[in-house]
Amino acid sequence: MAPIPPTAHGKGRASLPAMDRIGVVDTMFARVDMGAQARDELADCPGHGHTFEVVSRTVPGIKDLAVECKKLIEDDGCRIVVALGMPGKEPIDQVCAHEASLGIMNARLATNTHILEVFVHESEEERAGDLVPICINRARKHARNAYWLLYEPQQLSRRAGQGVRQGYADAGPIAG
Amino acid sequence: MAPIPPTAHGKGRASLPAMDRIGVVDTMFARVDMGAQARDELADCPGHGHTFEVVSRTVPGIKDLAVECKKLIEDDGCRIVVALGMPGKEPIDQVCAHEASLGIMNARLATNTHILEVFVHESEEERAGDLVPICINRARKHARNAYWLLYEPQQLSRRAGQGVRQGYADAGPIAG
Amino acid sequence: MAPIPPTAHGKGRASLPAMDRIGVVDTMFARVDMGAQARDELADCPGHGHTFEVVSRTVPGIKDLAVECKKLIEDDGCRIVVALGMPGKEPIDQVCAHEASLGIMNARLATNTHILEVFVHESEEERAGDLVPICINRARKHARNAYWLLYEPQQLSRRAGQGVRQGYADAGPIAG
Amino acid sequence: MAPIPPTAHGKGRASLPAMDRIGVVDTMFARVDMGAQARDELADCPGHGHTFEVVSRTVPGIKDLAVECKKLIEDDGCRIVVALGMPGKEPIDQVCAHEASLGIMNARLATNTHILEVFVHESEEERAGDLVPICINRARKHARNAYWLLYEPQQLSRRAGQGVRQGYADAGPIAG
Amino acid sequence: MAPIPPTAHGKGRASLPAMDRIGVVDTMFARVDMGAQARDELADCPGHGHTFEVVSRTVPGIKDLAVECKKLIEDDGCRIVVALGMPGKEPIDQVCAHEASLGIMNARLATNTHILEVFVHESEEERAGDLVPICINRARKHARNAYWLLYEPQQLSRRAGQGVRQGYADAGPIAG
Repeated sequence: MAPIPPTAHGKGRASLPAMDRIGVVDTMFARVDMGAQARDELADCPGHGHTFEVVSRTVPGIKDLAVECKKLIEDDGCRIVVALGMPGKEPIDQVCAHEASLGIMNARLATNTHILEVFVHESEEERAGDLVPICINRARKHARNAYWLLYEPQQLSRRAGQGVRQGYADAGPIAG
Repeated sequence: MAPIPPTAHGKGRASLPAMDRIGVVDTMFARVDMGAQARDELADCPGHGHTFEVVSRTVPGIKDLAVECKKLIEDDGCRIVVALGMPGKEPIDQVCAHEASLGIMNARLATNTHILEVFVHESEEERAGDLVPICINRARKHARNAYWLLYEPQQLSRRAGQGVRQGYADAGPIAG
Repeated sequence: MAPIPPTAHGKGRASLPAMDRIGVVDTMFARVDMGAQARDELADCPGHGHTFEVVSRTVPGIKDLAVECKKLIEDDGCRIVVALGMPGKEPIDQVCAHEASLGIMNARLATNTHILEVFVHESEEERAGDLVPICINRARKHARNAYWLLYEPQQLSRRAGQGVRQGYADAGPIAG
Repeated sequence: MAPIPPTAHGKGRASLPAMDRIGVVDTMFARVDMGAQARDELADCPGHGHTFEVVSRTVPGIKDLAVECKKLIEDDGCRIVVALGMPGKEPIDQVCAHEASLGIMNARLATNTHILEVFVHESEEERAGDLVPICINRARKHARNAYWLLYEPQQLSRRAGQGVRQGYADAGPIAG
Repeated sequence: MAPIPPTAHGKGRASLPAMDRIGVVDTMFARVDMGAQARDELADCPGHGHTFEVVSRTVPGIKDLAVECKKLIEDDGCRIVVALGMPGKEPIDQVCAHEASLGIMNARLATNTHILEVFVHESEEERAGDLVPICINRARKHARNAYWLLYEPQQLSRRAGQGVRQGYADAGPIAG
């Protein structure tokens, strides 16, 4: 048996974590390190290192995200997870993204736990370089959303119906 | 640990609620405050504040609705939920709406509980302003449907096959 | 608490029903009263009112059918259910119908119980009036199929591979 | 209560079957009797009537296959099932076939049991008569696959990556 | 009863395996023996035959992969599985691949276990011969990913967001 920390891949939790855990899962396939952005944003949130800690995993591609999120919740005690990926630009990549999203949806429902899906499609911009600020913005805003869902839900409810966006500027509310 | 009310996000219900609960979940992404409309309609229903109370949540986007509905039912004791969202107008938004709807479908089946899905697609109207009356009408009619499903199912059965619509005028029955 | 019959919406069955139950669920959205046709056909089947009784429900639209079918089976003891709906003619209606069908599929699998899906798409005919005989024929034939599945499965097996249709004339077997 | 054999539709198995069971489920909708072909092929397999027996069911259409397969496995003790159907040639039929296949997929996973899906699409050939040999070949080869999965898995492993087809001639391996 | 090894197809594990198990499942349908490539790569990984052994299965086609993966995990104790297949080039083959992938997704979530999906679409290259190096590369890289996920997760995390590909050359990270 290779030396793997038992909390990481073992079934069942040996003991309750000393503080809350927020999971961050990203992929080798993505072409921007979105996981680092999410972790950096969470490090700026109140209680980081005291109220909550961050647990990170990397999987090969977006189809592998869902089960890793579920394991982080069920085996490692994460109370919420941020899942980041970058679907490619071919038609088959859109099918993969759809399958990945359905998996994440089922992981949420199976665990009664929020998973913030942060996907940036390579097809969103023509120039690859233009994807970078979108990745940064979307990863950070959804990391903040994860924090809010756990600790400040009123931040969400006061923005209900306000056309809030991640990755781009807010669309804003429609005048009646 | 941040001060979160235990009934809102804790696992398991400490005690049975004193009255029935109807859940309302909306999103920050939507550009019209449909949740407020649903709550307002429910406030007009008989027994509001006596027979039933309304519990509200806001999530980032439509893909986050399903698990929040399931948590409202399983953790907070809601007997029915109204889930409101506004998918955007890009093709990818239609895929997201489909995933969100499949999640809501699975949440219904996992809980044996009705969830009224109130989606207004930005693509339904060319002028954004024209979406507002649709949002208001659809949110209110489905909030009323939620009430009927719980307390007056005969209101539904007497309208069976009558071409009833939400958001627009009724299509009406087809003459045989 | 409003006066709801406990067998209709309560969780768990107080006692076993005195006779078999066949469920019929339809929608307010449909523009033809297909549920009435299904009930009428079942009233013509042997044993109606003695061997089996019919339990009916109406829900707002086709996405609400699956969970109501599951509740009829699990909470009200139905041994089979006929689910009737009429998807609209817009592209989004086809997506809704697909979601509704996937929900019904999952309800079947979760309960190990047949649910006869009776969908008449508004797009099947150009003239609305031409939909009426299709609705009547399809609702009645599938109601009869429900009866056969429970009580006369040999009626089905002797028609295996015979190109049997509901709503239209049978296609018939292909000559080898 | 009508006289139904309890092993056919009752919940739970009264006793373990005396020999293995292989299920065959087909539809009234199909226009070729593929179930008969599958049963005939299984009758040619070693151990038929001694090691294993065949249990058959007919359902209305392809969407009804999945739950009948699951019932054959869970209620009637079948160790593998062959599910046969013929989707029609309209676009809506392709959606139905997709839903039917997803149901069969979930039935496999819920039971940890192989279900051999034998679908012949009416659109595979222009002339209806040309479908008959495809139906015969595909039904028989998959019935044989079912037998191999249970009793001779080495027949499958020695053909790994060999471009084996059912219904048509084998595509064969690609020269490297 | 035919002589089947009980660990291969029996329900439940008689005893814990002496070492870890990695599953490899491939198909008769594929036109390149990708399973052999995966097994060969795993044979090059540290601990092969000591820390872990490889268990192989072949199924007819890609839709049969998911349940075989789930059985390998639940009945045979595999801690991770590599699932290999080659969808054909017709439109219906893309639907089948989508269904196969959704099944594999559900198998992952049901078992909390990673399953590396290795699909090479016949449509990826015009010349069949050009598929062979893609099959070899993708099968080997994902077999290595399986090994890493179990024993060297830091190999994955240090490649996060680096545009790693299987089958083709890496896309690499995007310059910010």
